[in-house]
Amino acid sequence: MLNPCDTAFLDRLRGLLPEGCLSAPEARYLEEPRGRWQGVAGAVARPGTVAEVATIMAACNAARVGVVPWGGGTGLVGGQLQPTGPAPLLLSLERMNRLRGAYPEENTLVVEAGMVLADVQAEAANVGRLFPLTLASQGSCRIGGNLAANAGGVHVLRYGNTRDLCLGLEAVLPDGTVVSGLTRLRKDNAGYDLRHLLIGSEGTLGVITAASLRLFPIPAATLVALLVVPAPTAALDLLTLAQERLSGMVSAFELIHRAGFDFLAETLPEIRAPFDPLPDWMVLVELGLPAGIEPEMAMANLYDAADDRGLVTDGVIATSHAQADALWHLREMIPEANRRIGAVSSHDISLPLSAIPDFIARAPEVIADLGVFRVNCFGHLGDGNLHWNVFPARGRSRKDHEDVRDAVKTRVHDLVHSMGGSVAAEHGVGRLKVADLARYGDPGKLVAMRAIKAALDPHGIMNPGAVLAG
Amino acid sequence: MLNPCDTAFLDRLRGLLPEGCLSAPEARYLEEPRGRWQGVAGAVARPGTVAEVATIMAACNAARVGVVPWGGGTGLVGGQLQPTGPAPLLLSLERMNRLRGAYPEENTLVVEAGMVLADVQAEAANVGRLFPLTLASQGSCRIGGNLAANAGGVHVLRYGNTRDLCLGLEAVLPDGTVVSGLTRLRKDNAGYDLRHLLIGSEGTLGVITAASLRLFPIPAATLVALLVVPAPTAALDLLTLAQERLSGMVSAFELIHRAGFDFLAETLPEIRAPFDPLPDWMVLVELGLPAGIEPEMAMANLYDAADDRGLVTDGVIATSHAQADALWHLREMIPEANRRIGAVSSHDISLPLSAIPDFIARAPEVIADLGVFRVNCFGHLGDGNLHWNVFPARGRSRKDHEDVRDAVKTRVHDLVHSMGGSVAAEHGVGRLKVADLARYGDPGKLVAMRAIKAALDPHGIMNPGAVLAG
Repeated sequence: MLNPCDTAFLDRLRGLLPEGCLSAPEARYLEEPRGRWQGVAGAVARPGTVAEVATIMAACNAARVGVVPWGGGTGLVGGQLQPTGPAPLLLSLERMNRLRGAYPEENTLVVEAGMVLADVQAEAANVGRLFPLTLASQGSCRIGGNLAANAGGVHVLRYGNTRDLCLGLEAVLPDGTVVSGLTRLRKDNAGYDLRHLLIGSEGTLGVITAASLRLFPIPAATLVALLVVPAPTAALDLLTLAQERLSGMVSAFELIHRAGFDFLAETLPEIRAPFDPLPDWMVLVELGLPAGIEPEMAMANLYDAADDRGLVTDGVIATSHAQADALWHLREMIPEANRRIGAVSSHDISLPLSAIPDFIARAPEVIADLGVFRVNCFGHLGDGNLHWNVFPARGRSRKDHEDVRDAVKTRVHDLVHSMGGSVAAEHGVGRLKVADLARYGDPGKLVAMRAIKAALDPHGIMNPGAVLAG
Repeated sequence: MLNPCDTAFLDRLRGLLPEGCLSAPEARYLEEPRGRWQGVAGAVARPGTVAEVATIMAACNAARVGVVPWGGGTGLVGGQLQPTGPAPLLLSLERMNRLRGAYPEENTLVVEAGMVLADVQAEAANVGRLFPLTLASQGSCRIGGNLAANAGGVHVLRYGNTRDLCLGLEAVLPDGTVVSGLTRLRKDNAGYDLRHLLIGSEGTLGVITAASLRLFPIPAATLVALLVVPAPTAALDLLTLAQERLSGMVSAFELIHRAGFDFLAETLPEIRAPFDPLPDWMVLVELGLPAGIEPEMAMANLYDAADDRGLVTDGVIATSHAQADALWHLREMIPEANRRIGAVSSHDISLPLSAIPDFIARAPEVIADLGVFRVNCFGHLGDGNLHWNVFPARGRSRKDHEDVRDAVKTRVHDLVHSMGGSVAAEHGVGRLKVADLARYGDPGKLVAMRAIKAALDPHGIMNPGAVLAG
């Protein structure tokens, strides 16, 4: 059982830290984007160095006080706040936001965990390189949180998940042990890969304090198109065609259903739809091309080849940066429209690519007897990652379906699981999906996870209640 | 303390397994390529199913009998044999070599751990895809061993290390627990990443029995060139130039020193040198290009741009498959020439890319007072991974330097470590570098490694003596 982060503990901890490191937590630390939970905390610590983080962790471990790491507070599964139980200490890395080094000739950047993702992207651009992690919250999320959650986003297809963008980590284990692994090496087989164990563990095994990140050359040209496809199977065939013709140059491949534009028309009518009438299915394709390939030609050739095979029926190709931004803006506003409509249940799922058309066909059937719903299915098709979200019929509200919300979620997740998919694709487990992990997780994997958690965090101070039930 | 795999234990185990699963170990299981060690073993088990592997592991765990996993026996650091101590059971996966499934539309292949790497490559080619892991022993090493060791090879620059080519694993933990993680998902954040913990753990945490692997489109055209560079710095600048111009299409970038060709002339005189007189430094570049880029033009443009910057002085561009194979053959015969000369000490090291020229300049100095040596420095420059090997002067033998061998190794490794490098880049730790890991490993990382090892393998049965000292 953990102890609360109370005045007596804070008085002791204050004596070990520089002035100003500890304070009462403002409201922003105890809220999360979807408003599902309210957090509790005895204080927020904002250390400025890894040594201070180590001091904090060792003190919390000795006193059996919970620690909830806090990045940018943008997580969607409640990993960043603890709603019940003995008040923990919030550990915010926001003051550790420095650039430790830029090595463009190595395609490497070393940054502290509290750097905002947009600043990481800017530091890379400053040295003529690309840091490809791109997601909606990039203006406020922090790279340490992206790493802890193994964030996804729109460029995973080409550049991988956050874990694939990390060469090394500096981290602090629950007992205050510092792991100094800020390697800039591309090959290093000297011992177990702690980096990948910490990445995606959502702050339950330790705290990431800095990372060395992979950079990439900036493509000479970027081309964006919104293509109309007759069905999800055609979208997958188009993906295969694009990959075969432009191996490694397809930077994004996003599926969009008509519902997304319907929702935009309903909630943000100033945004103009790209087609009239609206087709059922579209894909947003981004190519990043080297010098020597004429971008419009590459896209036109792809379109013609797809047309020959019946995989596309119409399309808009951006001919300027402004048009490209406008197409991406359409895609990026869909979550905002979703929020305004108000989902009965949202699902961040992934499937084997070839199972996706079947899932899209079957999923509405498994919830059909629970009510009359609208479904907005969109997301990172290239990664097999869909946001399959269920909404009330027009004129009704999510509140009208509160009683079936859990049933909707369970039936969708059961279907995903039965088809070899994951119910925690890119947003993680957090506190929202603890029961899902217990239900769907491989029993052998859960045994190993519990053993590792007990080994590295024997008192269970790290992010209590997240990922694994206590 | 472990118990030997003796007759009494084997009699009990035999009753739990199908006939023919256990036998006396032939000599091939107890030897390794460099002839440094002779292994001991009570028997070799060749299970045919994951259930049989689980039975074997559970029995060994209960009886405290060591288990040494055996893939293709090609490892260079002694991870596959135990030279001393209570005789372990050798666990060979060679009968588990089936294709479990091919999904070209998902760029995924699911294979059992005992499949020979060349067969994995062939299964991928059978469905029109590329499995890019390419290394000298591919005709006999097995994919389970490649995964356990996180093998590198010549295509890491473009496609990553073995861990980057794996989507999911089936594995058996030391107590017989089966972890069923053969996902074909590109995004899955449901819990800790056991896959990456097992990959690279060299059989010390469990046994990999099957894997789902990432495939890639086959490039429309491949072009190979051997280019002469004035110095290692120029080679690195050429790499940067190539990456900027042909982002993601540089498949290999291998550094070759004149010594490699001198050794070939000395030991395999039938192999003709590509230049006369031989230059000091060369790079072997492989481009893998999509349709729409004319290969010779791409290479010619790269050469001209490099020439303008003074980064190349000469070159041979292969104009046929046969010429490309001949250039690769030169590169691949260098290790054979090394073997015939006989190294005083071989170093599989990696460095931050920008530190490489400095290392190449300084390394000969740190061993200068230990004798008169020849150095052959070659390897995967694109990954910062050099094979920096020390040889006796012409007419002398490695035996003449036995007394300084350890000093040579330590001084080279000390230098690598001081420059932020790794002394176990792509071959792993095995038993050869256990002391190096203890010496150079981050203390915090070692603490965490020991905790994880104790949690997953409390009796220490898995590959005793490998990676971590007992």
